Amino acid sequence: MESIIALRKSIDTRLAQLDLKVQPKNLYEPISYLLAMGGKRFRPLLVLLTAQLRGSLTSQILDPAIAVEVFHNFTLMHDDIMDVAPLRRGQPAVHEKWNQNTAILSGDAMFVKAYQLMTKISPGHLSIAINRFNETALQVCEGQQLDMDFEQYSEVSQTDYLEMIRLKTAVLLGFSMELGGLMGGFDRKNQQQLYEVGENLGLGFQLMDDYLDVYGDHQKVGKQVGGDIIANKKTFLMINALDLAGTDVRRQLKGWVSIRDADPKEKVAAVKNIYDRLKIPNRVKIKMNAYFDKAFRLLKVIDCNKDGLEIFNHFAHGLIVREG
Amino acid sequence: MESIIALRKSIDTRLAQLDLKVQPKNLYEPISYLLAMGGKRFRPLLVLLTAQLRGSLTSQILDPAIAVEVFHNFTLMHDDIMDVAPLRRGQPAVHEKWNQNTAILSGDAMFVKAYQLMTKISPGHLSIAINRFNETALQVCEGQQLDMDFEQYSEVSQTDYLEMIRLKTAVLLGFSMELGGLMGGFDRKNQQQLYEVGENLGLGFQLMDDYLDVYGDHQKVGKQVGGDIIANKKTFLMINALDLAGTDVRRQLKGWVSIRDADPKEKVAAVKNIYDRLKIPNRVKIKMNAYFDKAFRLLKVIDCNKDGLEIFNHFAHGLIVREG
Repeated sequence: MESIIALRKSIDTRLAQLDLKVQPKNLYEPISYLLAMGGKRFRPLLVLLTAQLRGSLTSQILDPAIAVEVFHNFTLMHDDIMDVAPLRRGQPAVHEKWNQNTAILSGDAMFVKAYQLMTKISPGHLSIAINRFNETALQVCEGQQLDMDFEQYSEVSQTDYLEMIRLKTAVLLGFSMELGGLMGGFDRKNQQQLYEVGENLGLGFQLMDDYLDVYGDHQKVGKQVGGDIIANKKTFLMINALDLAGTDVRRQLKGWVSIRDADPKEKVAAVKNIYDRLKIPNRVKIKMNAYFDKAFRLLKVIDCNKDGLEIFNHFAHGLIVREG
Repeated sequence: MESIIALRKSIDTRLAQLDLKVQPKNLYEPISYLLAMGGKRFRPLLVLLTAQLRGSLTSQILDPAIAVEVFHNFTLMHDDIMDVAPLRRGQPAVHEKWNQNTAILSGDAMFVKAYQLMTKISPGHLSIAINRFNETALQVCEGQQLDMDFEQYSEVSQTDYLEMIRLKTAVLLGFSMELGGLMGGFDRKNQQQLYEVGENLGLGFQLMDDYLDVYGDHQKVGKQVGGDIIANKKTFLMINALDLAGTDVRRQLKGWVSIRDADPKEKVAAVKNIYDRLKIPNRVKIKMNAYFDKAFRLLKVIDCNKDGLEIFNHFAHGLIVREG
């Protein structure tokens, strides 16, 4: 049984030793650059911790776990172009440090590297792993497309928003757990149940992200308070507020969203005040906790190794209470 | 044994019936749009015609053949962004008809579709097919990167140019034949030999493209005469001319390349005149024919079905003599 710290170290070591070619430099350097930025390695950890729910790990499961992380970083490289995001983890995004063409093509190459790592799975698991990886990758593209489409809409329903974050974020967490379940030796039914656990965790985490943007300890979160409000993002908070507000408050909210060049602090304070009056924080917490509760309920009925389960729960709960 | 026309029809029918989802529209429509533009379907034909070198085809080999075409079109969608190419087969490129973000993301989704189609290969062939597909895809990315890098160089050697076109174009033709060989039932050694046949055909075809740009019947070729000269492309003709020219002619050539706003007709005529004096057409033909000869020499020693070989040769020779 391996600790979270030990697993995290294995992941980082393996990521630093990807057998990337040196030439052409402009194709491969951006891949190493992005991977070296770090990150929580949440997805490969989820793969390994889920496999451990069945017992001890073998070293062969590391590459497919890493594949999920490389895939995730590929989506970040392309998303940063589409979102015109200059920074990634506080450093220049690839399309900024190099240029856009480099970010497109290195991203494509990175996607292939993800497939190469996934293909290292044991032959008996290859077909199902690749098929499910394909389906998941396509869903992640759909989620990003919906996210971009929603920017053009004046309003988005809660249902559509939840479907968007499910595709963009949650399915990959679901797949991470399903893949861990596959490699750990769970049967297909349990693998699918583990997928559900991951998907529900993912939905909960995304709502938590929306919540923390406004109500988090911004030093801990490492982001500007109310960044989503300033960027006029249609978060779960904003969508709920628009749904619940009466005519006047709705007009006020719409007013803040449509104003350009508003003082950011004033705007965040005003919108936050509306959220508070409508008890949005409480509503989001209820929804978020419903997803987390469902995840742990689903996990409870799976026959797990006791030690593995303890480590998994420690990890998952540690992420959930991060804002206290 | 199926005729080229019949195979071509199967390919087009299958491509028109890809089970693409309808939503999100902006993700899937560009894929159908690009595939509906047509094209020679050269790569899937090569897969099927190569499999036929072993005998009759089964319908299961169609999807992996189509995978190569979908992959090729994915690279076109992304390349057109990178090359700022407004048109593709005379119609607006995806990044022009929609926008750049759409072309990035639809391209990514198209890449996944290619993997989905490839995964339909029979289970016994899955591992080798995916591994070789991964390697090939990475090489194609490397080729595109080198092509972009070369635009920044003042001069490129023949060796580097040939390596670039090998990666960018020839390896995918090699892989098409290898995949056909795999699915047709050739042994691994023959599959690798078939790869070599395809790679050499690909190198020959690319040199033929360079040649036809200046010396082709431009109505047949469907492109502007001397388009590469006008765009200052470092083609095999230009690289050879710079290698062979004495100091004066070299200076003239460099002059034409560096002039902006030259009269296109005058520029093409002047550069063509230099090519003629240096006997570049003959040199390119010798090099090109050496690749074609090697391809057919390699093919000759493989034990093939007589009828299948006849159809294959008819197809390949038909492409080679296309400008008469």
